[in-house]
Amino acid sequence: MTTLSESRSVRRATMTDVARLAGVSVKTVSRVVNAETGVHPATAQRVLSAIDQLGFRRNVSARNLRRGTGTGTLGLVLEDLANPFYSMLTRAVEEVARVQGKQVLTGSSDEDPTRERELVLEFCARRVDGLVVVPAGHQHGYIAHEINAGTPVVFVDRPPGNLDADSVLIDNAGGTAQAARHLADHGHRRIAFLGDSPDIHTAAERLRGFREGCAQAGVPFDTDLVVMGPHDDTTVTAALSGPLRDATALVTGNNRITVHALRALAGRPSRPALVGFDDFELADLLDPPITVVTHDTWALGKSAAELLFARLDGDTSPPGRVVVPTTLLPRGSGEVVR
Amino acid sequence: MTTLSESRSVRRATMTDVARLAGVSVKTVSRVVNAETGVHPATAQRVLSAIDQLGFRRNVSARNLRRGTGTGTLGLVLEDLANPFYSMLTRAVEEVARVQGKQVLTGSSDEDPTRERELVLEFCARRVDGLVVVPAGHQHGYIAHEINAGTPVVFVDRPPGNLDADSVLIDNAGGTAQAARHLADHGHRRIAFLGDSPDIHTAAERLRGFREGCAQAGVPFDTDLVVMGPHDDTTVTAALSGPLRDATALVTGNNRITVHALRALAGRPSRPALVGFDDFELADLLDPPITVVTHDTWALGKSAAELLFARLDGDTSPPGRVVVPTTLLPRGSGEVVR
Repeated sequence: MTTLSESRSVRRATMTDVARLAGVSVKTVSRVVNAETGVHPATAQRVLSAIDQLGFRRNVSARNLRRGTGTGTLGLVLEDLANPFYSMLTRAVEEVARVQGKQVLTGSSDEDPTRERELVLEFCARRVDGLVVVPAGHQHGYIAHEINAGTPVVFVDRPPGNLDADSVLIDNAGGTAQAARHLADHGHRRIAFLGDSPDIHTAAERLRGFREGCAQAGVPFDTDLVVMGPHDDTTVTAALSGPLRDATALVTGNNRITVHALRALAGRPSRPALVGFDDFELADLLDPPITVVTHDTWALGKSAAELLFARLDGDTSPPGRVVVPTTLLPRGSGEVVR
Repeated sequence: MTTLSESRSVRRATMTDVARLAGVSVKTVSRVVNAETGVHPATAQRVLSAIDQLGFRRNVSARNLRRGTGTGTLGLVLEDLANPFYSMLTRAVEEVARVQGKQVLTGSSDEDPTRERELVLEFCARRVDGLVVVPAGHQHGYIAHEINAGTPVVFVDRPPGNLDADSVLIDNAGGTAQAARHLADHGHRRIAFLGDSPDIHTAAERLRGFREGCAQAGVPFDTDLVVMGPHDDTTVTAALSGPLRDATALVTGNNRITVHALRALAGRPSRPALVGFDDFELADLLDPPITVVTHDTWALGKSAAELLFARLDGDTSPPGRVVVPTTLLPRGSGEVVR
């Protein structure tokens, strides 16, 4: 059992301490620490022993600042890390960063534009080498200074507002258009859409796609069958028991709303056909299994991180937009024939 | 639409640039930036305009290094950020850190002790102010140097090996003992346990609790009905179709194994009664709804972060251990009477 010293205020060992203990110059310690050549193996061994004995660690932050090589960190601002969609996205960014020897700082904005801005500026003040941002707000002029000053920023899942910058998005409209057509193909004509607040880009795009899909299938688009904004069990239940109660089919706008809707509809003798945007764990084991519009969340995070590293590697081409496709995955809930 | 300058290699504006543009001394700029007194309001306004115009941002990393006030970051090493258990834990740590003005660096070890060590040493080399670690390995003597040098470390979910340090754990054994007794109370005598690798502390503790629960309930503990290690659909299916096929009841050792087991058992005409360790989303909507041993994951992360901040605030009491209790939540799958 290793025991800790009484005092926690012991100062960290420095290169000077190591040099003194090993009986060599600080320059020699520096050479060993930085794996440079020109140190006799026996001397190097003495230095390594001293390092081990003193618990010396290079201060990478200080070294990076001195060298001007950046801090070796990326910042990732997202909506809520506890949402499985964002935790998967984060893991993908982390994996790309890891291969490049960078660490990831994360922060959740909780859909609050002020919090988004605070996190972005905080990360920039800490001199992250680059940022991946799921924007909460629509005003991103404030980020232009950071990009111009050499901190690349890639937007993911949602595009920036009043700023021309790299972004990686899902084919939101394409996905919900396909969902609407799919339900129409199964005989439905009263199809409802239950989405997130229309202030959110993805929600607005998914509603637009739904509307287009209805038009393509020759099904009426009825604004009375559209509710935007519910985000918990209570408000989703109210929407499904109120304005949407006569719909024979339902498209839900994201994985959170789908889960709330499933809870609201549980136990009802007759349930609308359902297609949910985003796949989610156990969707295949529910009764009926849930038909979803799915997409490669890992690819979304990976593409964003790769775009960022391309910028860090000196890519100065105009800002680009990557769109990740969607696929409709029929499992049962969306194939109820009317 | 804000457009970006052609070149991305523009250097960041410095205090000197701001001072020149505002026609004041660098000291005056510093006073304004650090909200110190003694600057005429009109002068301050001129400085702020120059800051805005040049996109100047304080370099918080450099300032913190100069002042020796730490980097304002915490490191969080966990197993897999894409596992909902860990993403909830991360969010809780993030919330506590946020209130204290700190940002969180995360890294996933993928249950690899070498990767755990790399991440811990990498974060320490970046001079995080403190670390929260879900250990993958059992040897943590290497962390003693960091703790002695003033970087507090709190272990969460699993205790450290050969190191006396703060930890926050779940009452693993108590939870599975209750699960075994619950199934015995419903008439089961052939109760199987399907857990993670016994090298993992939580898995070993949950098996120990299961064994104790069987003894308490007067039910035979049969090693033939224990399988440890399966971790995907294939291996879990093999265990349930092979050695565990005659069990009338089953305790699963964590949320991942429960989900794999549900997939393996889906469609079987007769299924064993089931109690899963860890609650999970949609457990209540499955047929039958899944009885679980639940615990407050948010409290686990919150307690770990709070212990860490107590150390940062100068608490030098001996290392402590917090144990978060478990609760059995009957939903249906564990109340099948034999």
